[in-house]
Amino acid sequence: MTFIDKFRRVTAPQGLGLCVGLDPDPNRLPAQFSCDLKGISDFLDGVITASAPFAAAYKVNTAFFEAWGTPGWALLERIAGRLPEASLRIADAKRGDIGNTAQHYAKAFLENLPFDAITLSPYLGGDTLQPYLKNPDKGGFVLALTSNPGAKDLQYYTDGTDRLYQRVLAQIPAWAPQHNLGAVVGATHPEELIEIRHRFPNVPLLIPGIGAQGGDAAVVANLADPAKAPLLVNLSRAILYPESKLAFPESVVEACGEWKKKLLVAGG
Amino acid sequence: MTFIDKFRRVTAPQGLGLCVGLDPDPNRLPAQFSCDLKGISDFLDGVITASAPFAAAYKVNTAFFEAWGTPGWALLERIAGRLPEASLRIADAKRGDIGNTAQHYAKAFLENLPFDAITLSPYLGGDTLQPYLKNPDKGGFVLALTSNPGAKDLQYYTDGTDRLYQRVLAQIPAWAPQHNLGAVVGATHPEELIEIRHRFPNVPLLIPGIGAQGGDAAVVANLADPAKAPLLVNLSRAILYPESKLAFPESVVEACGEWKKKLLVAGG
Repeated sequence: MTFIDKFRRVTAPQGLGLCVGLDPDPNRLPAQFSCDLKGISDFLDGVITASAPFAAAYKVNTAFFEAWGTPGWALLERIAGRLPEASLRIADAKRGDIGNTAQHYAKAFLENLPFDAITLSPYLGGDTLQPYLKNPDKGGFVLALTSNPGAKDLQYYTDGTDRLYQRVLAQIPAWAPQHNLGAVVGATHPEELIEIRHRFPNVPLLIPGIGAQGGDAAVVANLADPAKAPLLVNLSRAILYPESKLAFPESVVEACGEWKKKLLVAGG
Repeated sequence: MTFIDKFRRVTAPQGLGLCVGLDPDPNRLPAQFSCDLKGISDFLDGVITASAPFAAAYKVNTAFFEAWGTPGWALLERIAGRLPEASLRIADAKRGDIGNTAQHYAKAFLENLPFDAITLSPYLGGDTLQPYLKNPDKGGFVLALTSNPGAKDLQYYTDGTDRLYQRVLAQIPAWAPQHNLGAVVGATHPEELIEIRHRFPNVPLLIPGIGAQGGDAAVVANLADPAKAPLLVNLSRAILYPESKLAFPESVVEACGEWKKKLLVAGG
């Protein structure tokens, strides 16, 4: 199945799905887990089991594994293999390097590891994205407008007509005629997000910034439209460490249910 | 010792030094090495020993290790620990993510691994670079103008006064008042490289693109000036797989000597 077909399938029927972000912080684990790699491993197993009925996609943040060195990479491999095959499995690696190096990153994440997609930096240009996109069954999400305050340093740079993030979005159809490249647009910029959706309806979006970062779920929910490209809303901290009266893993089940309702009922 | 002091020391007295890029391609190893991780490991040991008398710095390309999964990361750790402490040890990882994720990447490369510096993408803005720069003994090299053809897709984007890569360079002093952030500028753009050196004389540069990618050593050599910020010229394929009548590792010794002569005699 091609990347875009799988993306449509996991987000059907509304054209919007919940992406569970796995950013395991050892200092925020529930009390029953040890603050080490064993604790993280057990915690993630519990999160995946609890969230699987709700998750259209999973996004695994490689930094939180690399920080543990070789055993961390081994856990990344195990967790990647543990994600439901029917979900869209995203390596949140933000890689970006010239072609012969990019081939090795593509091999690492899209061949050796069973990810369907990888997050990418656009700074080096379209030629450096191609190694990740040559197989239409795999895909990428290129950074466009990110959720952090410093996003404005370069992403708002303008030639008088378009800002840099708009230029990135405008080039996506040429970079990926096989429809296997989406964009990362943070929900912390609601006006720009609405403008992007209107101007680039055929670009699939991965939307972080809701929950801990303060973006508004209703804004995103209203963008869902099965006639346009599919959307994924990523939630990491709000799913992994929810404020709840329930204990883990019921707290995760509850958080998934509540967020899915906010995103899909409002949007439906 | 601070990053900038160590950078000046390794590039003294000319203000320019040879950086040996470790991008181990299993298909290009000398015949005595097996085409596997064991062969790569032995090959890199030989390269480091042969190049140590010539190298101001080493740049380890993480993609070539990640492509081997967990055993590859274990080799990355071993090789990082094997680099001469007196050299400037650079993780060529091109990382770039928001703050709480960047902290984990910084821990992975600048705390757990003994690298002095890491290559970074500027796309997300200055706030995302700070976790790598807070310790003045460690540093970064942010992508400015890269050596690949697609560099022009975004890096030449202009507001009518400056191109994007110039904007990146102009912001470096504000992003890193501790002088621990340099820039990556490819030698495949000789006119721009000269312009950058003239306009931003206080920004340390890491210059790839010479050798296999076709950049001219003489152009770079002429930019060396101990009164300005220090320069590193990276050579990967031209050092690792030189055309030579000599066998490995003498071929590497010869290549290091020849390139150092081209870079430093011309520049002196």
